[in-house]
Order: sequence, then C-alpha cells, then structure tokens
Amino acid sequence: MSGFTSQDSATRISVGQAITPEELRSSGASADEATARYALMLGDDSLMLAQRLGAWISRAPELEEDIALGNIALDLLGHARFFLTYAGSAWGKTEDDLAYFRDEEEFRSVRLVEQDNGDFGKTIARQLIFSFYARELYSRLVDSADETLAAIADKALKEVDYHQDHAAQWVRRLGGGTEESHRRMQAGLEDVWAYVEELFVDVDPTTQLAEADIAVLPSSLREPVMQRLRTVIEEAGLTVPEVKGAYGADRTGRFSEHRGYILAEMQVLARQHPGATW
Amino acid sequence: MSGFTSQDSATRISVGQAITPEELRSSGASADEATARYALMLGDDSLMLAQRLGAWISRAPELEEDIALGNIALDLLGHARFFLTYAGSAWGKTEDDLAYFRDEEEFRSVRLVEQDNGDFGKTIARQLIFSFYARELYSRLVDSADETLAAIADKALKEVDYHQDHAAQWVRRLGGGTEESHRRMQAGLEDVWAYVEELFVDVDPTTQLAEADIAVLPSSLREPVMQRLRTVIEEAGLTVPEVKGAYGADRTGRFSEHRGYILAEMQVLARQHPGATW
Repeated sequence: MSGFTSQDSATRISVGQAITPEELRSSGASADEATARYALMLGDDSLMLAQRLGAWISRAPELEEDIALGNIALDLLGHARFFLTYAGSAWGKTEDDLAYFRDEEEFRSVRLVEQDNGDFGKTIARQLIFSFYARELYSRLVDSADETLAAIADKALKEVDYHQDHAAQWVRRLGGGTEESHRRMQAGLEDVWAYVEELFVDVDPTTQLAEADIAVLPSSLREPVMQRLRTVIEEAGLTVPEVKGAYGADRTGRFSEHRGYILAEMQVLARQHPGATW
Repeated sequence: MSGFTSQDSATRISVGQAITPEELRSSGASADEATARYALMLGDDSLMLAQRLGAWISRAPELEEDIALGNIALDLLGHARFFLTYAGSAWGKTEDDLAYFRDEEEFRSVRLVEQDNGDFGKTIARQLIFSFYARELYSRLVDSADETLAAIADKALKEVDYHQDHAAQWVRRLGGGTEESHRRMQAGLEDVWAYVEELFVDVDPTTQLAEADIAVLPSSLREPVMQRLRTVIEEAGLTVPEVKGAYGADRTGRFSEHRGYILAEMQVLARQHPGATW
C-alpha cells in the first residue's frame, strides 16, 4: 500500500493545511501514476460540469437561482483545480496544462456531466444525480490512505453537501409544483438517466487503488447513491426512470458528442495564446 | 429633500440590517419614482456586466482566473439584485420582473458594460474602467440621504474594492509583460475608451436626486475616476487612449447593438415559462 501513497510527507507542508491549489502545488505532494489517473477522472467530472453550469449565470429563471448555480459552478471549478493540480504533479504539468491542452479523447469525465443544460428540469436532474454521487464519494474519500486525496475530499465535502440540498429542494419543488413543472422535472430525469450507470463502473486504475484504500470503488457507491436518489425522486411524487444505461460506459472509450463542443469553448483562448497570458 | 426619502422608517426593519435582497424586500423600503429610476440605472449596469463576465467561467486563460471572473460576475449580480429589488418597490415589480420582462429600450445600462468580452485584454480594460467608476460612486453613495441606497452601496463597496484591485493588477501584469500582452492590453483600452464618457453624463433624474443628496452627480465622478485611471494606465507603461466619446451617451437614447443579444440569452428561459419556474 505504501507504494501508492505520496512520499516525503515528513518534509513538507501538511496537505491538510493547503487551502488553495497553489498551496497544494507548493506543498510538494506528488501523485504516482495510478493516483494521478484517478485524480484526473475526479477533476474532469467537476471541470466539465462547472463549464456546463457556468452558462446559467444570468440565464436561470430567477436571479437568485443564477447566483446559486453560479456559485455551484465555481465550487466545482475549485474541486477540479485541486484534483488536476494533484494529477499534474505526477507528470510535471499544471492544472492549466491539463484543462486547456489535452485533446478530447484524453479527458476522463463521465458522460453525465457533459450533457447539455437543456431546460432547468434537465439541469436539476443532472445536478441531483451528480451531487448525490459526489457526496457519497467524498464522504468516503476523506478516509483515503492518500492524504492529499483525503484533504481535497474533505474540502469538497462541505460544498457538495450544499449542492445536494440545493438539487433535492428543486426536485421537490418542481415535482410537487404545477403539472408543467412536474412534467419537465420527470422529463429531465428521463433525459439523463441513461448516464447514471457509468458513475458506478469499476475501471482501471480505480479498482487497484481501492484495494489499497486510496480510491473509492465506484460499484460500492451504487447501492447507497441509488437508494437515496430513489427516495428523493419518489418523495417528490416523481417516478424513477426505467432507462437502460448508455453503451460504452467506462470513462475511457466512448465519450459524449458534447465533449468537443465544451472543450472548444473552454480551450480556445488558452490555445490561441500558449503561455496563458500572452 | 424628505419627499425623496422612503417613508415609514420607524416601523420597519432597518435597511442597514438587510443582508439579502429578500430581506430588503421584506423590510418594506419603498422607492419613489425618481429614486427607482436611479436605482434601475445602477442595477442595469451591474446586471449587464455580470452577464458578460459570466461567459468567462471555464474560458479564461487560467482556471484560477476563471474563478476570479466568475466571482466578480456573481458579486455584480448580487448588486443588481439589490438595486432592482429597490427599484421595483416603486412599481410593484420584483427584481425578476425587471431583469427578464423589460424590453431592450427599457434598460438603462451604459454601453461600456454591454461591450463584448473580446479577448482578455478587452475584458480587463472594461473591468478597470467600470470598477474604478463603481468604487468612486459607491464610496460616495454610502452617504446618501436615502438609507436604502446607502446600505446597498455599503455592501457593494467592499466587493468593488476587490474588483478594482483585481483589474489594476492585471493591467500592470499585461502592460508590463510581453510585447504581445502589452499590445493587447493597449488595444483593449482603445476598444472600450469611447464608452468611458457616458459614465459621467448628468442625466435625469440623477441631477435632481443629487441636489437632494440622494444620488451622486455623475459629472462629479469624472475628475477623480479619470485621475486614478490615468495613474494606473501610465504606471503600467500603457498610454491613455485619445478616443472621442461615442455619440448619444445618455443611457436613454442610443444603446449598444449588443444589448439585444445579451437580453436574448438572459431572458429566453424566463419568458418561455412566465411565472419563473413553470
């Protein structure tokens, strides 16, 4: 197990004290190859969802909600920065290298987070699923044998706690609202449900890292997350969709047709001017 | 002067204690027609700029900067909510009514904040000018005879303090960076400079409100704001542009060709589903 944990922990700033990605970088925490690949998956999920949610600023049906979704987007971007900074430590790359200078097929995000915003019902359905998943994941990753992952999860946990409350409240409000709001919330769930299963597929190197208590085994999250999702959905008077999981769900093979579009928007500026700020 | 101030101050929650637009609404503070029209101008400026800046989430040249611009956008959206909530109190309208259900010609924003993001240099030039203007404006509006405007300005002031520091730091960094960064920062200033003058034009009803110590006379901001802008620009090794002010600068007549585009994006969802959330 010790082969997987980062080295030199006695000689550097404690990771738990790092409150910014800059501090994480300067703490000297360095991921090995497998842990870096795992951190990349977690970071890419947050990055893609942040990019999607950011588009809601000033476009939600209420200004108050604009701010809520905008804050969630910024939280997720913060989580992405931590995970990508840590992943990059294995390869001598910065978070910005990884965000702006990888190609489509090099990202490791699940397709759920890449789905388009659709209407507000679809966005909330996507938020519900991802935030319940992330809440469960981070609540266990805080016990990771890798102290950097544990520290990042600890910071992210408080925020995803709020994200899941926010999503669940909207599901209840829309599900129990007007006929139209109920119909749209149900349609939103149907739209994204095919992408739930991918969250729980055990992939390499996560499986090995989970054996070493570094990662959380995705399949072990299925039962608790699905149970809680079912409860919220049914309490809102909605129906858990019966939709087959989408084909090719392993984070590495197929990716959504949306990814190229997201990256085009996200990367254009950095790529026009390599070296970040000209 | 008392005719301009809001009534019933003895019977309601102190405006200074209102920390959210919801609390401002429930405080019972009610603007008269002239003050509402003034609040609308201030709110529209922040709303439009927030909408523009929000587009930077995940698109800046650095993830750290994504978060900074995103946070500034959310701050501005917060300021807009306060001002629009207060303006709406005169007409029985909510902030959302005013944001989503006014037509193009009913907005009162200056053209500066409607300008497109362009490259990062242009965005920073726009930020520099607006944040220096807003900083000076709010630092004087805290003494307004209208206690609601004073309370909003007090809250906004701490945030625009950060916004101007952020912009000034970037101007120095880009101005003193590479030849390319210097060129782009200068080009950004040239791009938006024609819209500076509009910030300082005395319009109705601001002039009358300023006489009653409720509003800040726009022309009285010209000297201190321009002085500080010149200092920052020159210290960054850049040149203060010599560009004539754009025609029709009075917030009410001409507006930028961008406004329709901004509103189309911002209003589509609320207008498709009146009543906000279906």
